Amino acid sequence: MASENNFQYNGHIKHRHLTLGLFGFGCVGQGLYHVLDETQGIKAEIKKICVKNRNKTRTLPEDIFTYDKEDVLNDPAIDVIVELIDDANAAFEIVKTALQNGKAVVTANKKMLAEHLEEIYLLQQRYGKPVLYEGAVCGSIPIIRNLEEYYDNDLLTGIEGIFNGSTNYILTKVFEEKKSYEVALQQAQALGFAESDPSLDVKGYDPKFKLAIAIAHTFGVFVKPENIINIGIDRISDLDLKFAYDNHYAIKLVARAFKIQNRVFGFVAPQFIESTHPLYAVRNEYNAVQLESAFAEKQLFVGKGAGSYPTGSAVLSDISALTYDYRYEYKKLHQSGNLQFSNHLVVEAFVSFEKGVNISISDFEQFESGYASHGKQYMVGKVTLLKLHEWSLLEGIGIILAPGATFAPQTEINRDKIPALVES
Amino acid sequence: MASENNFQYNGHIKHRHLTLGLFGFGCVGQGLYHVLDETQGIKAEIKKICVKNRNKTRTLPEDIFTYDKEDVLNDPAIDVIVELIDDANAAFEIVKTALQNGKAVVTANKKMLAEHLEEIYLLQQRYGKPVLYEGAVCGSIPIIRNLEEYYDNDLLTGIEGIFNGSTNYILTKVFEEKKSYEVALQQAQALGFAESDPSLDVKGYDPKFKLAIAIAHTFGVFVKPENIINIGIDRISDLDLKFAYDNHYAIKLVARAFKIQNRVFGFVAPQFIESTHPLYAVRNEYNAVQLESAFAEKQLFVGKGAGSYPTGSAVLSDISALTYDYRYEYKKLHQSGNLQFSNHLVVEAFVSFEKGVNISISDFEQFESGYASHGKQYMVGKVTLLKLHEWSLLEGIGIILAPGATFAPQTEINRDKIPALVES
Repeated sequence: MASENNFQYNGHIKHRHLTLGLFGFGCVGQGLYHVLDETQGIKAEIKKICVKNRNKTRTLPEDIFTYDKEDVLNDPAIDVIVELIDDANAAFEIVKTALQNGKAVVTANKKMLAEHLEEIYLLQQRYGKPVLYEGAVCGSIPIIRNLEEYYDNDLLTGIEGIFNGSTNYILTKVFEEKKSYEVALQQAQALGFAESDPSLDVKGYDPKFKLAIAIAHTFGVFVKPENIINIGIDRISDLDLKFAYDNHYAIKLVARAFKIQNRVFGFVAPQFIESTHPLYAVRNEYNAVQLESAFAEKQLFVGKGAGSYPTGSAVLSDISALTYDYRYEYKKLHQSGNLQFSNHLVVEAFVSFEKGVNISISDFEQFESGYASHGKQYMVGKVTLLKLHEWSLLEGIGIILAPGATFAPQTEINRDKIPALVES
Repeated sequence: MASENNFQYNGHIKHRHLTLGLFGFGCVGQGLYHVLDETQGIKAEIKKICVKNRNKTRTLPEDIFTYDKEDVLNDPAIDVIVELIDDANAAFEIVKTALQNGKAVVTANKKMLAEHLEEIYLLQQRYGKPVLYEGAVCGSIPIIRNLEEYYDNDLLTGIEGIFNGSTNYILTKVFEEKKSYEVALQQAQALGFAESDPSLDVKGYDPKFKLAIAIAHTFGVFVKPENIINIGIDRISDLDLKFAYDNHYAIKLVARAFKIQNRVFGFVAPQFIESTHPLYAVRNEYNAVQLESAFAEKQLFVGKGAGSYPTGSAVLSDISALTYDYRYEYKKLHQSGNLQFSNHLVVEAFVSFEKGVNISISDFEQFESGYASHGKQYMVGKVTLLKLHEWSLLEGIGIILAPGATFAPQTEINRDKIPALVES
């Protein structure tokens, strides 16, 4: 009787022992290996690690490594593929084959996920095996799990945050230690926070990939990353920094998405942040996510977004969840109704440009002020996101969202209300 | 075939429809009712609400209410008891009977849980039904769920935070709006953040109850609340406030627990907080929890800790989790080994007292400095937690932990190293 009750009590929790096959043994893979090694209680062991480079010295015995992906993907003893390689296309092939072969997958490849999320969702349904990817969004912060499990019935209205550790590290150093942008970037790379191709970070691609994944789990809408506008921090000038210092602002690269009526808006852009804003105090390689919902109201999660151990811990938590057959339900897909992603938004921004660049007051929906300083022009006002995107593709134009900027769907701005100002 | 795959995919997730019986219809109960009413997707309805006061005007039709608890506890159609009453003893009887009668329980009663947690754990095992209580610890912050599910395999070394919204509200108002302590307390009560008996909040009992629950889920150790030392904010003086202003500190009531070797230490006390500390920016009725672990490193969760909707949303999330038979596993109980709770700790504190109070340098393990100001004496140094506890029970002694205070087990302090200073 006691044992029956016990069984009943542990009804849904039958922990399975898992055999893992790893793809990639870079910083996250090695972090995971050590995390697995040092933690008790998780019933999983790495059987094979598929790597590319035959000439690299490895820290583990040679026989755990293979150079042939079939050795891992076709091994019937392997239950779970842990995919930790850089190449997004190769990673997607691995995920697809793994699912086809009846294996669960854990991955932290945000680019691959962002580009193929709908397909990966469908593949999970088709082959009945889960793909977990907590490590792909904001490193150690358990945001996907919380969106899936905890905020499954609350009415989420917005998600915003600092989704990229290396740019936050750079911006922190530039501000607090008055380092030059270049020195701060080099430091971030030396510490392993920044990608070897820094444009993924500083142009805002990396946080955009994460935002695309977060949007699916927040609002139940799949958006391709190429449809999300990303404006980077690579055009931030000394004048911008001075303006921020003088006004006690920080500059942060903010990823955000929110719902207005039946539309979801989402984009990545630098913004002046007031000192009372919760993101102001998020420093160095830390990431932060703030959820806004009808009932729980504002929830902030802060944690390390980069580094081998923080990401390794997220991957480990996914592996642990697979021992009791956890899978994402994508509940919000079924609740999303006719929600649609849109870029038809008006935002308040500071736009800076050199003389000769063709920007005028009439480009703004609502022009607020303009000034010239040190050979640069500044214009501040409400402008469409699509116009900002257009400008972000041209040389010599800097864009930073206004502190406390509000956002409105494009149709709600009345162009008749533009004051007839003379260009400054 | 497709449907079979679908079934396989949703294998562990068979959502059940739940019929709820409610105890109490105060601010959280009413919040829950509206949250349930306004959210789609959750398969649960309230069948009966047991209330005490027959003379109160109710906002719902009379026939949903009952004054006899047996009507709810013995109704075989009711699957889940949602217990939201004040009286901790009555609440425990309700929880016990509910489990005996084969019903799951959701409760937000931190006092009851803290006092009976081990028994409630055993009752869950015995009767095979779960008790969930996310709303009991830090309102809307999903800390228990994250400790149970997400940090189940990481090596947690510490948990600390602001566990009480009303004292944080009071301290914020006192600091930022230079309100008097009494006015700030009255405001907190008027807004519904503070208990009608404010001593539960300001003397640190409420955060202590939450800490006792958190310790079980962080370290797998059951501690009775009477064994946890709580020092309140009721002795904070204008001089303390001035000292804080002058040094750009905030004062926060901090609950914390941490592991040193095979001992767990935990207590509640006010502390001077530096402006770079993550808790510094946590204002008004917000709560915050920071976890420290070997791999995920520092994780901060911030959210509203009081109010009907934030707590209602946590209760709702528990109800939602019961639709798929979720239960806490208390995994860390089995991982905790020979961990033991201890109060034999040395902490660094500012102690203030009137002339005539019998405190001397020899009471400190390491005396650092002393001064007299406006008829008060201050002594700063390392002192045992048990000594602080003793002082906190006497009139006229104020205790605030030092900014960035470090903590050491009592045996590690070498008393021979005390400098032979003359009393100031």
